[in-house]
Amino acid sequence: MEYRKVGKSGLRISELSLGSWLTFGAQLDIENAREAMRRAYREGINFFDNAEAYASGMSESMMGEILKEFKREEVVVSTKIFWGGNKPNQKGLSRKHLLEGTWNSLKRLQLSYVDLLYAHRPDPETPMEEVVLAMDYIVRNGLAFYWGTSEWSAGELEEAHRVAEKLNAIHPVVEQPQYNLLSRERVEKEYLPLYEKYGMGLTVWSPLASGLLTGKYNDGIPQDSRLARFPGLKKHLEENGMLSKENLEKVGKLANVAKELGIGLPQLALAWILKNENVSSVILGVSRVEQLEENLKALEAKEKLTDEVMKEIESII
Amino acid sequence: MEYRKVGKSGLRISELSLGSWLTFGAQLDIENAREAMRRAYREGINFFDNAEAYASGMSESMMGEILKEFKREEVVVSTKIFWGGNKPNQKGLSRKHLLEGTWNSLKRLQLSYVDLLYAHRPDPETPMEEVVLAMDYIVRNGLAFYWGTSEWSAGELEEAHRVAEKLNAIHPVVEQPQYNLLSRERVEKEYLPLYEKYGMGLTVWSPLASGLLTGKYNDGIPQDSRLARFPGLKKHLEENGMLSKENLEKVGKLANVAKELGIGLPQLALAWILKNENVSSVILGVSRVEQLEENLKALEAKEKLTDEVMKEIESII
Amino acid sequence: MEYRKVGKSGLRISELSLGSWLTFGAQLDIENAREAMRRAYREGINFFDNAEAYASGMSESMMGEILKEFKREEVVVSTKIFWGGNKPNQKGLSRKHLLEGTWNSLKRLQLSYVDLLYAHRPDPETPMEEVVLAMDYIVRNGLAFYWGTSEWSAGELEEAHRVAEKLNAIHPVVEQPQYNLLSRERVEKEYLPLYEKYGMGLTVWSPLASGLLTGKYNDGIPQDSRLARFPGLKKHLEENGMLSKENLEKVGKLANVAKELGIGLPQLALAWILKNENVSSVILGVSRVEQLEENLKALEAKEKLTDEVMKEIESII
Amino acid sequence: MEYRKVGKSGLRISELSLGSWLTFGAQLDIENAREAMRRAYREGINFFDNAEAYASGMSESMMGEILKEFKREEVVVSTKIFWGGNKPNQKGLSRKHLLEGTWNSLKRLQLSYVDLLYAHRPDPETPMEEVVLAMDYIVRNGLAFYWGTSEWSAGELEEAHRVAEKLNAIHPVVEQPQYNLLSRERVEKEYLPLYEKYGMGLTVWSPLASGLLTGKYNDGIPQDSRLARFPGLKKHLEENGMLSKENLEKVGKLANVAKELGIGLPQLALAWILKNENVSSVILGVSRVEQLEENLKALEAKEKLTDEVMKEIESII
Repeated sequence: MEYRKVGKSGLRISELSLGSWLTFGAQLDIENAREAMRRAYREGINFFDNAEAYASGMSESMMGEILKEFKREEVVVSTKIFWGGNKPNQKGLSRKHLLEGTWNSLKRLQLSYVDLLYAHRPDPETPMEEVVLAMDYIVRNGLAFYWGTSEWSAGELEEAHRVAEKLNAIHPVVEQPQYNLLSRERVEKEYLPLYEKYGMGLTVWSPLASGLLTGKYNDGIPQDSRLARFPGLKKHLEENGMLSKENLEKVGKLANVAKELGIGLPQLALAWILKNENVSSVILGVSRVEQLEENLKALEAKEKLTDEVMKEIESII
Repeated sequence: MEYRKVGKSGLRISELSLGSWLTFGAQLDIENAREAMRRAYREGINFFDNAEAYASGMSESMMGEILKEFKREEVVVSTKIFWGGNKPNQKGLSRKHLLEGTWNSLKRLQLSYVDLLYAHRPDPETPMEEVVLAMDYIVRNGLAFYWGTSEWSAGELEEAHRVAEKLNAIHPVVEQPQYNLLSRERVEKEYLPLYEKYGMGLTVWSPLASGLLTGKYNDGIPQDSRLARFPGLKKHLEENGMLSKENLEKVGKLANVAKELGIGLPQLALAWILKNENVSSVILGVSRVEQLEENLKALEAKEKLTDEVMKEIESII
Repeated sequence: MEYRKVGKSGLRISELSLGSWLTFGAQLDIENAREAMRRAYREGINFFDNAEAYASGMSESMMGEILKEFKREEVVVSTKIFWGGNKPNQKGLSRKHLLEGTWNSLKRLQLSYVDLLYAHRPDPETPMEEVVLAMDYIVRNGLAFYWGTSEWSAGELEEAHRVAEKLNAIHPVVEQPQYNLLSRERVEKEYLPLYEKYGMGLTVWSPLASGLLTGKYNDGIPQDSRLARFPGLKKHLEENGMLSKENLEKVGKLANVAKELGIGLPQLALAWILKNENVSSVILGVSRVEQLEENLKALEAKEKLTDEVMKEIESII
Repeated sequence: MEYRKVGKSGLRISELSLGSWLTFGAQLDIENAREAMRRAYREGINFFDNAEAYASGMSESMMGEILKEFKREEVVVSTKIFWGGNKPNQKGLSRKHLLEGTWNSLKRLQLSYVDLLYAHRPDPETPMEEVVLAMDYIVRNGLAFYWGTSEWSAGELEEAHRVAEKLNAIHPVVEQPQYNLLSRERVEKEYLPLYEKYGMGLTVWSPLASGLLTGKYNDGIPQDSRLARFPGLKKHLEENGMLSKENLEKVGKLANVAKELGIGLPQLALAWILKNENVSSVILGVSRVEQLEENLKALEAKEKLTDEVMKEIESII
């Protein structure tokens, strides 16, 4: 396992990492989650991603319980604040919710600080000054070492840095966007000027496009799959064209490339992301421990993605 | 119940809210206050207003006891500092009183922080730098999420923002002025440039002009009324012309308008305030739980205040 | 008793106040000190002055014990840091000694904060940046509400303000100089530009010039007097010319003025200081509780110091 | 023993001090270490140097246990952060490691703060902004009174000051370089502009060039010597030319000078460093308590290093 810096920051995280979205507290019970984290750590994964919204907090509670097995310094733990409940001040990035949400997350995680705290979405309803000062408060009070964003636009990130500069506040160091063979625009174009300018790091989610890049949806939606289990997710993917015929065709061609290389499509998809040096870590979500083992093979697959192969992939997507 | 942002800030409060002035610890005992807060919360009110001066601290003690029933994140609690006692350093906005007052209020409220902390009046005897830095200390130490002012002039608010800017300190986000059909000058004229410029929110008190806008004083002062119970308040209203013949005439005409609309005068008076979008919340003070129910009907009355009706009201006042 | 603001700050202290220098833990035992503080407080004195150096910390321990009788908000307590011991880092204004000294003083005083913390002398060996940032740390951490200086030159005060401005740190608000009928230079000339410019307040010590202005040394040094008890003090006064024949003559003439007004010389001396509106408080040091009663008569003597009398005094000194 | 200021700061440390590198937890067990610290303190040494890396933390644990005998204000304790373990985030100067490392060091030292915290090496992998802000956090949270660097280049120190200035953060006050008769370049040339410009102090290590300047390696490496015990150190010295024939010849000549003066070579070597007034303290590392006594004789040797002798030494080296 290689460790990459989170952008220009001094923090180092494993190039593959373990997320808990849709899995901890849902597809994985505490014992399966424990097994997944143990194996991940044994294989060199040191970054574990979470959010207050995942499984209504249960994902944090579960991870917090398991984290007791690990030495705090040896892991990098994140959480994200935005959706903490349905009441008027339980969502968004107001100072009230950012602080109350963080305190609650830390209680569930049984930690005194997380390494990374993300603003899970942009909040146009809260002034950037308020968001940046609340994050500054969180870092300066030792509740998090670094802060970042998730799914913010380049313009919003620019504003965050401008405001942090003006208020002499702590700057964000990382973005968590969706990034995979089928969703490239933001990471490869929109954010391009920001990597150099602000030293922004990326921890990317949905590397397999919600399972689409496993190829398992090419012949319909299997009964025990994630799309079958989470209808909201399926609807979302249908609406944004992710499940389009065109995409499924691309997936088919990519599967052939993988086959030629003697690797699985998921390994090809993950390895392809790792070739992007602006990516700090690829967050894996596994519903069975075996999937983790499968995904880890992507590390070896990296070498097979020669310049020639990369060009072929480029021509497909 | 609608929720409005406190100015441009990310905090959301119910358009109607419950204050404790003259009621908690005076007209309402703990059981009545508890009942009022429960019903208010059930109807969607999430903002509860207080001050160290109310009932010499007993209003805070009472509210603190009752607040234990509520989830901290679901309520927005405020208090105000200015009059904490008669000794030389127990009033005003010196760093000493702002900090000691806040610590004492939090103890009575049994909270580790309030959401909003108001400077209950301007203090010309304390430099603005001292006030702003003390408020900054309070927010940066987690004793309050936001700070605001009450009954400050536009000029004083301008100075507070100028000083906060210069010292890189936390800015105030809210003012709590008196505002009702009979007292409009400050909110509608004096503060006008500030809403846009600083994103200032308003939580307004005395929406019924100390009961004048219930119409109950049009035929003299009933024995069990607030004016009968608090002679100081009566004297104050007499001195500032609030109880003038002219005003009582206006109230009579407004009562007719209300009658035509099939609503009570208090509902008309409250709904009229809610039509002003610079107002974040109207603070209700109730001496009986039933009054709360009556006042909440203002929410439905809003719709009846068509442009035409608003013009008619305008011509009366 | 009148209360004056400490310069332009919002803090209010009694125009006469009680110091502990040379008395607490020396001429006064715990019971006498308790009696002095009780009477002082009963007469309206709210400001009690101390220093880590007084009686090697015993003055603070004694005052701390007695302060338990008082409500924290009703008193203004100060201490001063500079001489905390003989070891290399136990004196001066290094960050190490300012912080360790303050922590130790607070422990002896059994307080979590003092109202005023003074740098007891200037320290040319420590950079002004270090002093100002340490004081800023102390105020921002709630160990003191305000900070000040004692016996600093106008130039040093100017530098402190310049550095505080540059570093966006908390400014000092008060100086504690020696000031009496026989030592006027610094307060009346050197500091003159600073009162307006920085709103500096003054708490003045040695108002009776170590007893010289009681007239008791005019016929030699009585056996139980302060000068007899503290030879170092006597030597100091001899060296700086305080005990010069010229001064003793002035004292004689002033005693005659006092006699004509029907008041004592000490009352005249104290009242004369109170006529200076740049003075926030005159710190009394009493070796017997009766002296306090005597000194308090100065408040009534103020009225007798008409413009004419002030002119006469001016012509003598 | 003379006490010198750490550069322009207000902190005072003994010109000779006791380090724990390679000794505490290695050549010295707890009882020997205790004896060394007691004697050192008795002779006036008030500065005790440590690092998280020394004996894998055991050096701090040992010193922490012994420090309980001393009054906290009377000692100056340092530690250094850089190498805290082998995991990705256990080394370097990331915010994560600087904070976690400091917390861990303080636990081992059983202290709530150190006086000096050093960045044990520069970390080109972490942005200077992150390092400076983490050190600022540490000082502003009371975990250290001052921060410094060890083995940083003049360029890196310039950048640290520039960044601290820009971010209004606490500046470093001290560097800990290697400095002795055989390694002079950095202290005497590279750093030269920095002493005046930033008031930088120096605590220097390896004053006897790992024992080379005792003369004991001139006839080969004795079995119980440091170079025999630490092969890594020996290799390092061989590689950087320290053990070159040229150097051994110089040592021979210097031994003759010492002999003429009637002092030992180590005393001459230490006294020669003390003649440099940019040096705040020379850190001694002793593997036997007797070495400490020997080294302390350097204080008397200082006088023998007349201008003439200094010239002679200069001509040799």
